[in-house]
Amino acid sequence: MTDLSEIIKYVKNNLSEKRFIHTVGVAETAKDLALHYGENPLFAEMAGFLHDIAKEYTLEQMRELAKDLKVDETILNSKALMHAVAGACLAKKLFDIPEEVFNACLYHTAGRENMTTLEKIVFVADMIEPSRDFSGLDSIKALSKTDLDKAVLTSLNSTLMHLIKTGKKIHYPSVKTRNYLLT
Amino acid sequence: MTDLSEIIKYVKNNLSEKRFIHTVGVAETAKDLALHYGENPLFAEMAGFLHDIAKEYTLEQMRELAKDLKVDETILNSKALMHAVAGACLAKKLFDIPEEVFNACLYHTAGRENMTTLEKIVFVADMIEPSRDFSGLDSIKALSKTDLDKAVLTSLNSTLMHLIKTGKKIHYPSVKTRNYLLT
Repeated sequence: MTDLSEIIKYVKNNLSEKRFIHTVGVAETAKDLALHYGENPLFAEMAGFLHDIAKEYTLEQMRELAKDLKVDETILNSKALMHAVAGACLAKKLFDIPEEVFNACLYHTAGRENMTTLEKIVFVADMIEPSRDFSGLDSIKALSKTDLDKAVLTSLNSTLMHLIKTGKKIHYPSVKTRNYLLT
Repeated sequence: MTDLSEIIKYVKNNLSEKRFIHTVGVAETAKDLALHYGENPLFAEMAGFLHDIAKEYTLEQMRELAKDLKVDETILNSKALMHAVAGACLAKKLFDIPEEVFNACLYHTAGRENMTTLEKIVFVADMIEPSRDFSGLDSIKALSKTDLDKAVLTSLNSTLMHLIKTGKKIHYPSVKTRNYLLT
C-alpha cells in the first residue's frame, strides 16, 4: 500500500489551494469519524485525501480515466458525478490503494445502495468538513456522530434541495441511494 | 367518442366526495387553460374528469388494470405513479376516449419528456385547481397562463421539495421530466 505521505505530497502539488484545504478537511473529518465508529482511520484519511483528485479535470479527461470501468450513461454525462468515478480510477492508477478506499472515493458523491461504513464516513465528511458552510450543516454534523445513515440521508436531501432551488438537474444515482435509505 | 355527461355520471357515482370535488376542479381548470392555449376544451375537460378514476384502487388492482401496458418497474412499485397509469387504462376500458385524453391521464403525475400541450394543461390543472392550497401555488397559477413549461417545471419542483421534506421516495419519471425541461 502506498504511504499516505506520498499521496498527500501528490495532492498538495496537483490540486488548487482551495481544493487542497477542502481535501485536508475531509481527510481529518473522515479520520475522526472512523475512530468514532471503529473503522480503519488510515483508510478514511487516505480516501479523504484522494476523493477529489480528478475534480479539476474536464469531462472528457474524466471519461478517459474511467474508460475501463462500466459506468452508467447518466453518470458519464454528469461532471458532478463523474469526478468521483474518475478520481477513484486515477487514485488506483497512481497509487497502490485498498479496494475499500477505491470504493469510498467512487461513491463519495451519489452514494449507493447498501454503502459500507467507510463509504458513509467519507460521504458525510465531504459534506461537513470545516470549510463547508450551508443551511442545515449543523444538523448533519450532529447526526454524523449518532446516526450515519441519517447523516447520509440528510446530506442527500440537502443536496437535492439545493439542485432544485438552483434549477440544476438531479441525477438518478443520488435518488436511488436516498430511496434505499428510506426503505 | 363517449359523451362527457356519461363520464361525469360515472365519476360522480364512483369517487369519494372529496375526490369528486377535486376532479371537477381539475376539469374546469383544464378546460379554461385549453381555451387559453387554443387546445380542444372538450378533451381537456374529459381528461380532467378521468385523471384520478383509479386513485382509490389498491396497488394490486392498479397493476391488474394496467396489465396490457408495458410499465417500468419503478412505476409498478409506486402507488403514487401507478394511479395515473391505471386511471388511463380504466378510462379506456370503460369509455371510448381519444388517444390524446388517454395520454393526458397517463402522464398527469410524473409527466414525460416532450409532453403535448394537452398533457401539460392537465398536469398543471391538477396542481392548481381551486381546492388546492400549498406554498408556491400562486406562482404556478400565474405561470400557467404565461409559460406552461415553467408551470410544469415549478409544479415538479414543488412536488419534489414536498417529497424531500416529508421523507418520501422520489421516483425517476418525475426527475426525468424535470431534467428534460431544464435542457
